[in-house]
Amino acid sequence: MTSLTLYIGNKNYSSWSFRPWLGMRMAGITFEEVLIPFDFANGHPAIKAISPSGKVPVLRDGEMLISESLAILDHVARQAPGSGLWPDDHLLRSKAMSMSCEMLSGFHALRNACPMNMRRPRKAIEVSGAIAADVARVETLWSGCLEQTGGPFLLGGFSIADAMFAPVVNRLDVYGFEVSDVCALYMRRMQALPAWREWEEAGRAEPWIVEEDEA
Amino acid sequence: MTSLTLYIGNKNYSSWSFRPWLGMRMAGITFEEVLIPFDFANGHPAIKAISPSGKVPVLRDGEMLISESLAILDHVARQAPGSGLWPDDHLLRSKAMSMSCEMLSGFHALRNACPMNMRRPRKAIEVSGAIAADVARVETLWSGCLEQTGGPFLLGGFSIADAMFAPVVNRLDVYGFEVSDVCALYMRRMQALPAWREWEEAGRAEPWIVEEDEA
Ligand SMILES: N[C@@H](CCC(=O)N[C@@H](CS)C(=O)NCC(=O)O)C(=O)O
Ligand SMILES: N[C@@H](CCC(=O)N[C@@H](CS)C(=O)NCC(=O)O)C(=O)O
Repeated sequence: MTSLTLYIGNKNYSSWSFRPWLGMRMAGITFEEVLIPFDFANGHPAIKAISPSGKVPVLRDGEMLISESLAILDHVARQAPGSGLWPDDHLLRSKAMSMSCEMLSGFHALRNACPMNMRRPRKAIEVSGAIAADVARVETLWSGCLEQTGGPFLLGGFSIADAMFAPVVNRLDVYGFEVSDVCALYMRRMQALPAWREWEEAGRAEPWIVEEDEA
Repeated sequence: MTSLTLYIGNKNYSSWSFRPWLGMRMAGITFEEVLIPFDFANGHPAIKAISPSGKVPVLRDGEMLISESLAILDHVARQAPGSGLWPDDHLLRSKAMSMSCEMLSGFHALRNACPMNMRRPRKAIEVSGAIAADVARVETLWSGCLEQTGGPFLLGGFSIADAMFAPVVNRLDVYGFEVSDVCALYMRRMQALPAWREWEEAGRAEPWIVEEDEA
């Protein structure tokens, strides 16, 4: 296996970077990490210099650059088939993939109104119908999975689905949404992971304030 | 293998439905098809009655319902490993997945301004900077792949990446974008596929007009 480098944005704010970083840590995959701070005022020239899609995260694997959080996770899962990043069971894997795609393509109201923010003190916000619908859908997905598999993670063991929804765990917490007990327990379990805490503490210690993401 | 049913929207307009339908046809997978016409005025109650995500496409495989175009394609690719739906080569597969995820999560300007429309006569539209940037990115991705692999499809043989970008082939054509020769040839090759023509002819013959999608 060639050496892996993951290019990420600010740990406090970069929800898409957090997903592959957390998944790779949980899978015990060795990688170098390069943080490129956001530069909203200037259109992120440092990110554009390295990333063909103009976005982070990007994974460098030897000569190849791989964009897209979910594609990075799928790439490393294929290199580390014993990692459990994708569930072994065919139908559970399809469920993990389906949820991950729904996260990647949807939940725009929640994503726009409630940016991931590791250092935000918990404080409820005004909730529109579209945001409430997004949160209700998250709860349906999470509790359906947790009840079917018995947990501790969405599909049983930690999988790519947990990594893809990790920033939503932060959002539901810091924007003060009320969730069912089964979801609240799941959120605490995610936030107690050593890898989660390592990322969170690094994010909180960052000097940068991104006004766009301080909702 | 259990029997597969693919629930789709209108063939003339439903870009997300076209993706798995085309991929499954190209892979020679047997499935039943159930078309649920859009009902924008009433919030698509017939789609919501069958689909847990409230959207089409949805695949029924025995007891299980699988949402999300890309997850449906990944599900059937795992059931038909000889289909070539995912390239065999590890790095080409990562490229296919990365492009598919970028399609799923991005190109919003192009998607919003230029809905897929199988029966639209070719006619150029006014192109904003954001739309031009989306089209430029598509061209970079397509021509990079076609030059690397030599075609005839993006990753060599027909793969999920081609299925995911199929509606963009229609858009670049009917909204009159000027593209490079290598991209124009690729578009003609896609549009000449018997499966493409079958879908297109059925779409053109549909009685329904969706005003929202007549740009
Ligand atoms: N669909 C992409 C989204 C990546 C993304 O939007 N990243 C943000 C940071 S979290 C970014 O790079 N923004 C800079 C820009 O869009 O210019 C993924 O899943 O990786
Ligand atoms: N990310 C989904 C998108 C599905 C989607 O947006 N489907 C549209 C039709 S093309 C739909 O069902 N719209 C009805 C609605 O949103 O109420 C996928 O890849 O399948």
